[in-house]
This record gives sequence, C-alpha cells and structure tokens, in this order.
Amino acid sequence: MKALAGMEVDRPPFWIMRQAGRYLPEYRAVRATTRDFVSFCLDSEKACAVTLQPIERFGMDAAILFSDILIVPHGLGQDVRFVEGEGPRLAPVTNGAELAALTMDRFHEKVGPVYETVRLLAKRLPGDVALIGFAGAPWTVATYMVAGQGTSEQKPARLWAYRDPTGFETLIDLVTTATIEYLAAQVEAGAEVLQIFDTWAGSLPEDEMERWVFRPIARIRAALKARFPHVPVIGFAKGIGPALPLLAPATGVEAVGIDPTVPLGFVRDQVQPTAVVQGNLDPLLVVSGGKAMHDRIETILRTLGPDRFIFNLGHGVVPETPPEHVAALAKQIRDWHR
Amino acid sequence: MKALAGMEVDRPPFWIMRQAGRYLPEYRAVRATTRDFVSFCLDSEKACAVTLQPIERFGMDAAILFSDILIVPHGLGQDVRFVEGEGPRLAPVTNGAELAALTMDRFHEKVGPVYETVRLLAKRLPGDVALIGFAGAPWTVATYMVAGQGTSEQKPARLWAYRDPTGFETLIDLVTTATIEYLAAQVEAGAEVLQIFDTWAGSLPEDEMERWVFRPIARIRAALKARFPHVPVIGFAKGIGPALPLLAPATGVEAVGIDPTVPLGFVRDQVQPTAVVQGNLDPLLVVSGGKAMHDRIETILRTLGPDRFIFNLGHGVVPETPPEHVAALAKQIRDWHR
Repeated sequence: MKALAGMEVDRPPFWIMRQAGRYLPEYRAVRATTRDFVSFCLDSEKACAVTLQPIERFGMDAAILFSDILIVPHGLGQDVRFVEGEGPRLAPVTNGAELAALTMDRFHEKVGPVYETVRLLAKRLPGDVALIGFAGAPWTVATYMVAGQGTSEQKPARLWAYRDPTGFETLIDLVTTATIEYLAAQVEAGAEVLQIFDTWAGSLPEDEMERWVFRPIARIRAALKARFPHVPVIGFAKGIGPALPLLAPATGVEAVGIDPTVPLGFVRDQVQPTAVVQGNLDPLLVVSGGKAMHDRIETILRTLGPDRFIFNLGHGVVPETPPEHVAALAKQIRDWHR
Repeated sequence: MKALAGMEVDRPPFWIMRQAGRYLPEYRAVRATTRDFVSFCLDSEKACAVTLQPIERFGMDAAILFSDILIVPHGLGQDVRFVEGEGPRLAPVTNGAELAALTMDRFHEKVGPVYETVRLLAKRLPGDVALIGFAGAPWTVATYMVAGQGTSEQKPARLWAYRDPTGFETLIDLVTTATIEYLAAQVEAGAEVLQIFDTWAGSLPEDEMERWVFRPIARIRAALKARFPHVPVIGFAKGIGPALPLLAPATGVEAVGIDPTVPLGFVRDQVQPTAVVQGNLDPLLVVSGGKAMHDRIETILRTLGPDRFIFNLGHGVVPETPPEHVAALAKQIRDWHR
C-alpha cells in the first residue's frame, strides 16, 4: 500500500501473477476436489484456501483473490465452461440479439460467492499482507465472449468492432458496467487494491486501443474513485508497448503493470514518471531459475526500485515452474534493501 | 527502390505482406494442383505464377517471392511438413545431438528451386516492379525448429535459450549462416531488395532481443552488405514496440517494418528518423473494408508519407479478405499524391 501511495519503502513489495496456481502441489490437491472450474472459483472456502497457499509458503506482500476473468460473463448469464486441457468455452455472443440475452438482473447473486471469498480472505490474511481484488478489462473479457474461446489474435472481437462499432460498444458498455459493480462489491467485501487485466490489449491499433481499452478502463476507474477514493487500481495492459506511457494519464490508474518484453530503461524514463510500475520478470526465467534469474531480478530491482515499484512477473507464473525457484525469488527480494 | 534510398517520391510505393495468398481465387486454383506445401514452394513455375498474380490484379509496386520461412530448415535437412488446417510440423531439434544432424552440405541443392523462382521472376516482372527476396530471421525460424510447430508464446525455444544459451547459440549461428547464403543466392538470382521476417521477436525481453534478434540480423546484414553493397534490407520484427527505434541502429537494416499496434506518432518521431519505415494497416481493416479502412489509410499516408515510407499492412493479409477491398486499397494509394 505504501509503494502504491508513492511513499518510501525499505525494499519493493512483491507478489507474482497467478501465484495461486497449478505450479503448487497444494493447489493441485485442492483443485482436484472439484471437477468444474467455474464451480471451483465460486467455492468460497476453496478459493480462499488456494489464495492463501502462496502467502503461507513464500510470504508475498500481497494476496490476489483466486478467481477467473470469465466470472463476469457468467454473472451476465452467458454459458461459461472450461474444457480440461483446452481452456474456456462460452456460448459466443456475436450479434445484438445474443447480446440482448445478457443481463445484470442476477449478476450479484451469480457472482456472490466471489464476494464471500474476499470477506473470508479479509478475515484470514495476516494484517501486513495487502488483499488485491481483480477483474478482466472489458476488451479482454469481450474477446472471449465474442469468440467463445481464447484466440491467438482476437479476430472475432476485432472484426465485430470494425464492422459494427456501435453494436460492439453496447457489449463493451455492458461489461464495463458489470465490472464496476463487481469491483465495487469486492472493495465492500475487503479488497484493498484492485487490478484490471487487459491481457489482449496488445492486439489493437491506437484508435481502437483508445476506444476499447483506455476509455472503458477510465470509466471503471472514475466510477470506483467516486465511491472509494482511497482504493488504488493497477492497470495491466499486456503488449501495448509504446502506448504504456499513455495508460495512466488516459485512465487514471495509480499503477501500471509491465509485461516482460518492455525494456527497463523505457519503463523508468517513460512510464514510471506517470505511475507506480509493477513487473516484469519473464515467467520462463523462473522455470529455468539459477543465476540468470537472480541476475535479472537484481537488474529489475536496481532499475525500477525501490520506490514507486512493485516487483512481479511480467505475466502469470506457468504450471511447469519449480516452486523452489519461486522460493529463491522470494528470498532474494525479501533480503534486498535500498 | 527510390523510397528505400530515401529519395523524394510522388506517392509512397506499396505492396502487402502475403499478397500472393489464399484470399485470391487464382492462388487457390494453382495451389490446388500440388498437395504438399513444401513441394509447392519448391515448384519454381508455380511459385513464380502465384508471385505474379497480385501484381497483375492490383498493380503493387513490389513483388515478394512466394516461398516459406521454413524452407531454410528444410535446406538444413530438418523434416518439414505442413498439415492441412494445422500448420507446420517439423521433427523438433531440442538438443545438441539433434542439432548436429543438421548441415549446410546439401543446402543449395535442396533450396535451389527457390533461386530458380527468383530468376524466372526477374525475367517476367515488369521493369517498374521491385523484386523482394526474403527469409525468416534466425530467432523466428529457430522457434519452429525447436518446438516442431507454431507456438503461441515460443516457450520451447525461449526455455532452451535460458537453460543453455551456448547450445542455443549454435543453432542460431547455423541458421544465420544458412540465411546469409540463402539471401545472397536470391540476390544473385535477381532479388533487388530483401526482407527479413522476425515474426516472434516480440516474445523476448530486452537482453534476449539483443542476443537472438538484433545480433543475428546484424550479422546477416553485414555479410550481405560486404557482397552486395547496394541491396537494401527491410527488417520486420513484429511486436517489439518500444525497441523499434533500436532495430535499424543495432542491425544496419535500411528499413523497418511496423506492425499494426504501433502508434503512428511513435513511428514518425522515433523510428522514421532511424530508417525508412514500412506498414502498418491492420489486416482486419481490409477484411471489413469501407470508410474505416480508407480513413485509416489516409491517416497512415499523411503521417508517414510520402518519403522514407513504404505502405503495407502491419502483418500478412488474411484468407477471408475480399479481393475487392485490396483493389480499393490499391486504388486509394495509386491515386494519392503529395
């Protein structure tokens, strides 16, 4: 919280994206007790348990709610499933009629268990560990809603947006409204920080980025600010590269997530003056580990730390990561000081 | 050629990546006569015919040799196949022993039909149409050689590079050497310009980008410069965003390809001073067509043209593109003047 407020810190705080996940045997043990992934995300006790696991094992400075970005379309009434080894499958929304079937009417009821998870976490987390709530950004969530699955270049959503920007905006507006309500309820349940994941922002040219990435996030940020002026928001727009210096000014987020491919000098000179920055170790360096990982961590800490900086990976930790490499990463950062 | 030399032009020249391809019915007709894709690439008469098709239909200012970046691993003795609807399948090279089986010994013999295609094109192309030869960059080609197929994040090659940089460098060096010989032979056969495609450069952090993208391309550029001082090279490193201003200074290429996500102001202010630039219309805007496409083309032309600029898409034209949209694009550019 101090780092996000721009205050001086002894060392940068750290957490790692997808820290509650498949690379941990204790996660796999809990996960194995529920077949369906959406049901697993909506099981507050289990979601709370796996959220706490990495904190107990590695001592991260923040816990991030265990959930999934597709819980929002589920709350809007879209059919969302996860196929083992293949990823999400949704009943695609490709036109106005399919879009009209989605509604906020039962949203809070359907996603309510997520709020209960946050309440449990707020009670059970150590007081010095920040609790991060999250949601997918409207653009990224919409890419799944339109395609009905993950896609390498987000073509279905991008084509809809080109062919019928007004219709597509109706979808984006609905997701934006839902996301505001969803994040507000997480704050009311105890979330202290919020992160918005725009994983597929990087597939858009600048005009579309302005319209489908910056504008919806700005609307979310403003609505939350009006209700919870002291809750900071981290915006993570993966792959937007040269547009990163625009993200915080255009949206009002307090912090900007940095993916692994962004040069550190660019981050320091052009992004950090606009916002607190968070990132950006390559998750594959934690798979390989060793000196190369430690050297890069040191370079990141020296270049971007200690203030106005949160150490993290540049993308989610991958399942094949040895937990002992994460332990070595955690030790290096905890032992570091200005 | 004038644009690449930095000379004044009446309007920017144009061609479009993958202009000889599946969106054209006349391409599909020729393609249907050969089952195996590698054999098709190595059929000089057919490869020449499809290279000429878009020139005849749309009047582009440049023709690009029809071939595939995986012809180089084929020349090195790796088993390369294409599975209908799935993409390339190679016998993966994952360690030193598998790497040692690859050799330059029969390279020119195996890829020789490509040189014959270039010779045919040099004879048959109108004199005012530039002939572009090409190869994949060593990094991108290596990602397929190591994974044995296309991968969304190039994990196998990236992990090998982290775990065993010296071993991986042996692979990169071999591909670099082969690429130099391959491009040199294309120039001897009549190619007037060369483009190097580093489609997956954007998955690498900065140190790896320097080692696996910039350094091999610089070696290729220097070797070709020594033999053919007047043949310009276009470097296309997709997705490297903030590192684009470094590409030409680090490698010596005369021109830099720009993918669709890079903001035009960034290109004009930070890339164009270092090199001629080429790009960057979103291929999906040519699928949707109409006013949105024409408006964006006009914006690109006004921002980056007319000099030190080659109009192109920011990535390859996609199969679902209506040819009449390409015709409208071509007309707009041919009618444009400073």
